[in-house]
Amino acid sequence: MTDPDPAAAASERSRSPTTNSLPRTLEWIGGSDGCLRLLDQTLLPDRVEMRDCSTAEDVWEAIRVLCVRGAPAIGVAAAYGLCLGTRPFRGKPTDAFSAKVAEVGEYLCSSRPTAVNLSWAVRRISRLTLAENAGDSGAVWEAMLSESHAIAREDAETCRRIGEHGARLIPEGGGVLTHCNAGALAAVAHGTALSLMYAAHAQLRRFRVFANETRPLLQGARLTAFELAAAGIDVTVLCEGAAASLMRSGAIQLVVVGADRIAANGDVANKVGTYPLALAAQAHEIPFYVAAPRSTFDLSLPTGDQIPIEERADDEVSTIGGKRFVAAGARCYNPAFDVTPARLVTGIVTESGILEPVTPEKIADIFAARG
Amino acid sequence: MTDPDPAAAASERSRSPTTNSLPRTLEWIGGSDGCLRLLDQTLLPDRVEMRDCSTAEDVWEAIRVLCVRGAPAIGVAAAYGLCLGTRPFRGKPTDAFSAKVAEVGEYLCSSRPTAVNLSWAVRRISRLTLAENAGDSGAVWEAMLSESHAIAREDAETCRRIGEHGARLIPEGGGVLTHCNAGALAAVAHGTALSLMYAAHAQLRRFRVFANETRPLLQGARLTAFELAAAGIDVTVLCEGAAASLMRSGAIQLVVVGADRIAANGDVANKVGTYPLALAAQAHEIPFYVAAPRSTFDLSLPTGDQIPIEERADDEVSTIGGKRFVAAGARCYNPAFDVTPARLVTGIVTESGILEPVTPEKIADIFAARG
Repeated sequence: MTDPDPAAAASERSRSPTTNSLPRTLEWIGGSDGCLRLLDQTLLPDRVEMRDCSTAEDVWEAIRVLCVRGAPAIGVAAAYGLCLGTRPFRGKPTDAFSAKVAEVGEYLCSSRPTAVNLSWAVRRISRLTLAENAGDSGAVWEAMLSESHAIAREDAETCRRIGEHGARLIPEGGGVLTHCNAGALAAVAHGTALSLMYAAHAQLRRFRVFANETRPLLQGARLTAFELAAAGIDVTVLCEGAAASLMRSGAIQLVVVGADRIAANGDVANKVGTYPLALAAQAHEIPFYVAAPRSTFDLSLPTGDQIPIEERADDEVSTIGGKRFVAAGARCYNPAFDVTPARLVTGIVTESGILEPVTPEKIADIFAARG
Repeated sequence: MTDPDPAAAASERSRSPTTNSLPRTLEWIGGSDGCLRLLDQTLLPDRVEMRDCSTAEDVWEAIRVLCVRGAPAIGVAAAYGLCLGTRPFRGKPTDAFSAKVAEVGEYLCSSRPTAVNLSWAVRRISRLTLAENAGDSGAVWEAMLSESHAIAREDAETCRRIGEHGARLIPEGGGVLTHCNAGALAAVAHGTALSLMYAAHAQLRRFRVFANETRPLLQGARLTAFELAAAGIDVTVLCEGAAASLMRSGAIQLVVVGADRIAANGDVANKVGTYPLALAAQAHEIPFYVAAPRSTFDLSLPTGDQIPIEERADDEVSTIGGKRFVAAGARCYNPAFDVTPARLVTGIVTESGILEPVTPEKIADIFAARG
């Protein structure tokens, strides 16, 4: 479980021919006394600036303000955040240390409620306090850091395999529509939905990508366009309202998006605006795929109705680039996610393959098979 | 046909208890040597500034940059623009004058291609060159100005009647969703879709309005929120992507939008983003109404497929408030309108009543009945 090379996770990206010109989404810098270095995504595409986090509070804040975002990436960030938040307690009695792990874990989970990868990573790291060597909190902490590196490494590999499985869905000479950013910037490398595009691009396939700008925070315009253009993939940005008529024009043969949480029945929580996209895809008989690692499934929730949907501040809608556009006297409604019913999802691309059709039985199967 | 009081049209608004705190969308100032005064809607809600147009070029530019916008308002503006553009030719031989009317009319119609009210108004004014008094171009011009005043007056009255007919659709204690701005700012007064809300509000009915912000130019956030809040109507702004999940939550009982052109079969061109809204309304069994004057129908087009859809500049999508958000290397797709098939439209509220269901026969009937 120990990891001799903390930089191994980050180096994953350099193996990808299509994303190696990008700054790294996140990486651990240094050894046990190191820090988590994040690419500040709130500043993209204008400025490429890194932000170093040395405490759990730094990581909480970075997740909260979307300096780091994307379900896989915030899972990895939270794992490292748990290490940072408990580092001062290395060497304390194990009871006190374990209590601290639980406390910091709960705190980190409060940063954003919808993406389940966050609590999944916190749970996976926290479990180490129950391990055989739990008598020595210093050793437990080192194991926690190693496990965080492992999560990061696995995330890159998982995303790479998602792309490999899904690349065949990319229509040769056709158009692919995506929403928000489910790319290398949303993960350690490759991304989820965009991983399909990177894999197809590496196979020298030709296609066009249409990226919904994704209001309110414009992750499509700022991030998806940024990373696809950097990889040399043809990308066109549109406002959400134009997606349905674009589909009607015949320009789109595939819709593929990421996910923040998938319920046991296959209902998918993803960035707000995903659900109307799925409705429009259905109306135009265009396949609608979700790409997500297995860690995005939450089998404890029977349906999407139980997924908590984060509501964010009014000013994300009312104010753009420091300028307020909404008239005084009006309120704003700003849910960060919506839920797409499983019946609208053609298939889900995971690291284990493509799950299609999306049924509770098929979902249960992929977890039963792997334990 | 002459109009002794050029300010009559503008005074219509002051009779409305709900919109009289608003600046006037457009009004003719002075007599025959006057000018067209427009509220510059590109500056709202920050600044209330008027823009005076003295030439056809001024009006063309004002329509082009959306200083004045909304199908009914640009019809009225074009009528006055035609007067302004031909004013220097008063007293010329009638052949030369008529040729100038045709030339300026064609020029004004080139400002924006989708809203049919523009060419409708230009045709109505141009027809006067064929009238009995056409031997005197000075008299024809005076008749053109009077007819423009008449169009403005009628527009206010037409919109008032749309509101009167449609007010009963507003759900008591419920939620109404609208897109873009089809309000007093899109017409001489009252508006089309929002006229229903003003009429219901005047009847002391209680309801909430949800306004799609309407990217790229944010007419919902800037204009609809502005005029509804000014009228004391409860209004909440949301991003387009959140509309479908808002419907799913049960908060919306009615969707009502305006229109820029309606084909003979009832297909509706309106601001881009209307079509996905209609798809979402259908999925949630929420009535979807269009409110538009009869001048918005274009019976020369059998279906919406023949409606020309304006594509506007990339920078409307890429740049907000002077700041570019789209990454370098990415293009933008920016159609200004989309077409909603008649089968998704529950009914069309016109000044003649509510046309429901929307069939080519019913549409032909309302025109046959009126000539």
